[in-house]
Amino acid sequence: MSPQRTPEERKQRAEAVRAGCTRFVSGHYPRKPQQVLADLAASTPPDLDADIYGSGSLIADFEAEVAGLFGKEAGLFFPSGTMAQQIALRIWAERSGNPNVAFHPTCHLEVHEEGGYRLLHGLHGELVGDRFRLMTLDDLKAVRIPLGALLIELPQRHLGGMLPAWDELKAMTGWAHDQGLITHLDGARVWECGPFYGRSYAAIAALFDTVYVSFYKILGGIAGAMLLGPEDVIREARVWQRRHGGNLVQMYPFVLSAKRGLDEHLPHMAAYRDRAVAFAAAMSAVDGITILPDPPQTNMFHAFFRADPDALMDAAMDAAEESGIWPLRWVKPAQIPGWCTSEFTIGSAGLDIDPAEVGALFGEIMARVRE
Amino acid sequence: MSPQRTPEERKQRAEAVRAGCTRFVSGHYPRKPQQVLADLAASTPPDLDADIYGSGSLIADFEAEVAGLFGKEAGLFFPSGTMAQQIALRIWAERSGNPNVAFHPTCHLEVHEEGGYRLLHGLHGELVGDRFRLMTLDDLKAVRIPLGALLIELPQRHLGGMLPAWDELKAMTGWAHDQGLITHLDGARVWECGPFYGRSYAAIAALFDTVYVSFYKILGGIAGAMLLGPEDVIREARVWQRRHGGNLVQMYPFVLSAKRGLDEHLPHMAAYRDRAVAFAAAMSAVDGITILPDPPQTNMFHAFFRADPDALMDAAMDAAEESGIWPLRWVKPAQIPGWCTSEFTIGSAGLDIDPAEVGALFGEIMARVRE
Repeated sequence: MSPQRTPEERKQRAEAVRAGCTRFVSGHYPRKPQQVLADLAASTPPDLDADIYGSGSLIADFEAEVAGLFGKEAGLFFPSGTMAQQIALRIWAERSGNPNVAFHPTCHLEVHEEGGYRLLHGLHGELVGDRFRLMTLDDLKAVRIPLGALLIELPQRHLGGMLPAWDELKAMTGWAHDQGLITHLDGARVWECGPFYGRSYAAIAALFDTVYVSFYKILGGIAGAMLLGPEDVIREARVWQRRHGGNLVQMYPFVLSAKRGLDEHLPHMAAYRDRAVAFAAAMSAVDGITILPDPPQTNMFHAFFRADPDALMDAAMDAAEESGIWPLRWVKPAQIPGWCTSEFTIGSAGLDIDPAEVGALFGEIMARVRE
Repeated sequence: MSPQRTPEERKQRAEAVRAGCTRFVSGHYPRKPQQVLADLAASTPPDLDADIYGSGSLIADFEAEVAGLFGKEAGLFFPSGTMAQQIALRIWAERSGNPNVAFHPTCHLEVHEEGGYRLLHGLHGELVGDRFRLMTLDDLKAVRIPLGALLIELPQRHLGGMLPAWDELKAMTGWAHDQGLITHLDGARVWECGPFYGRSYAAIAALFDTVYVSFYKILGGIAGAMLLGPEDVIREARVWQRRHGGNLVQMYPFVLSAKRGLDEHLPHMAAYRDRAVAFAAAMSAVDGITILPDPPQTNMFHAFFRADPDALMDAAMDAAEESGIWPLRWVKPAQIPGWCTSEFTIGSAGLDIDPAEVGALFGEIMARVRE
């Protein structure tokens, strides 16, 4: 039986337990702002000038570097991906004269942006396919309204980082282009799908007219994103960025940390993915745990636990207290009663944990749940 | 005669001259990103936790502190003022059902935001009064359409930081409230008007329903702003902030530098203003220079020079090279042929320059222009 605790008590306990942990199944080792700032200061040339309203060589060089990595003409650094994607879709909608954008029901624009694309830009999001499965070419063909654009998220975050097969991806984007649609890549976690496709980022991005990438997730930056695409689209995006209030007077802490993140983490994406596959295999061997997707296709996956969410969290914190290994950050109810779910994103901290330890940790957690 | 130079050559020369200067008429001593980050790291407690999506005690405490300073119920930290003000006006417009906002023709929303308030929020800006004079109560009374809101900028940046007399300010905001309008304060430089009014920031803000303040101008922060107002408006503003893409995952470099800026510079606003008055007096004694407003009412003022813009810039750089004192950042053509203008904002660096030196410097510059 799980003890009675209020949500606030659970939250405080989790923070205390986490502070005592020295190893972490997901993510990178946590760093406090003081350490991040000191590291950035130490790695910044003393004569580097600040950016000002998006201009200056620090940002321009980085925009060119990332644009090159994705084979696009130009890039624009943004404080957030929310802003970058709405702006890309607004520009394309004005060019096509069609405000209808097709995307998956769990698209970030639909579930995390409070309707901004509708209320700020007058766009319509046409939800395509099933919430619990990837969008397919057949789903797209079944759409009954004229579309202006197609947005695809690679990997699909709310499906545990699932990725369409390369041929299916090519078929969907090819169909869209044949219909006169533009294609936009929501690449919030696009860095993670290199190992699965075994192709360059430029080859993946070549299927899309514009691409958004993020710097603060697996890359560990403070904040920031980039929109990549044709020169004329990016030039117009600069105007929209100012309209949105995103043309900040200075963004160098974001840019400097993004550059560091690329250098530090991009070379290890395959190692993170391999470790995720190994962790997931160890966890799926535990009774009452189901992995999505199994095996993982990137360094992320979702796990479903046959357990009450509070009971699982309490058991996870008990196990973390004993082991010093932080197992998971949050637990949410799953669709099926009696089940709950959590998200795993394996980063550099996971490289220091043996998959067998993860199996034992979650075996212990599930045993406590069943007590 | 001024030598022939391209705009790019002038820009490069100005950068080189500025790098060689050790004293600065306007602003604070320049600091490179490396130094700013190192200083921030040194002044940040090692155990301070990062903010996440606007939550956490670092931001919450700062919001409460600034809200208290302005006597408002609540505050919301923003990456930019552009975003904060559009959102405030959108919220008020939805409540009143009236999209018409009255503001001065040089309002930031009108001249620096690429029409964002129209294109993102469907608002109409009713330009009130004369571009070269402050808005008055009589100007407001002459408006021929129903208004939903009144925005007043204190001080008026494009009039050299001019401020309405307290009684006129009270009359305008009182009239607006009598008419059922809401009042919003564009306080991009509101810190600067404390000495002129001789009243607390709370007393000034009491005339307005919502207030925007900025942290990166005279306060020297990296970037960032805050919207202050009633609890329910700020709660709704959080939703709009997410819609705008301004609910960044982490903003602690902005927040930490804003807090430092308040501590470092707010106590010296009167000293900065006094020095601006002294500099302006010394400059206005030079033949061919006119000051707006004369005397300055804040630490900022505009100067008009009877000179060709390029000739003035060349003469200013010559004088800066000789004196090691950086006189001005840019020069723009003025309305009247044969005149040009520049903006002066006196900060901590100005405290180390004697007003007589400024008079001599600009005397030398104008003498060179006349050669």
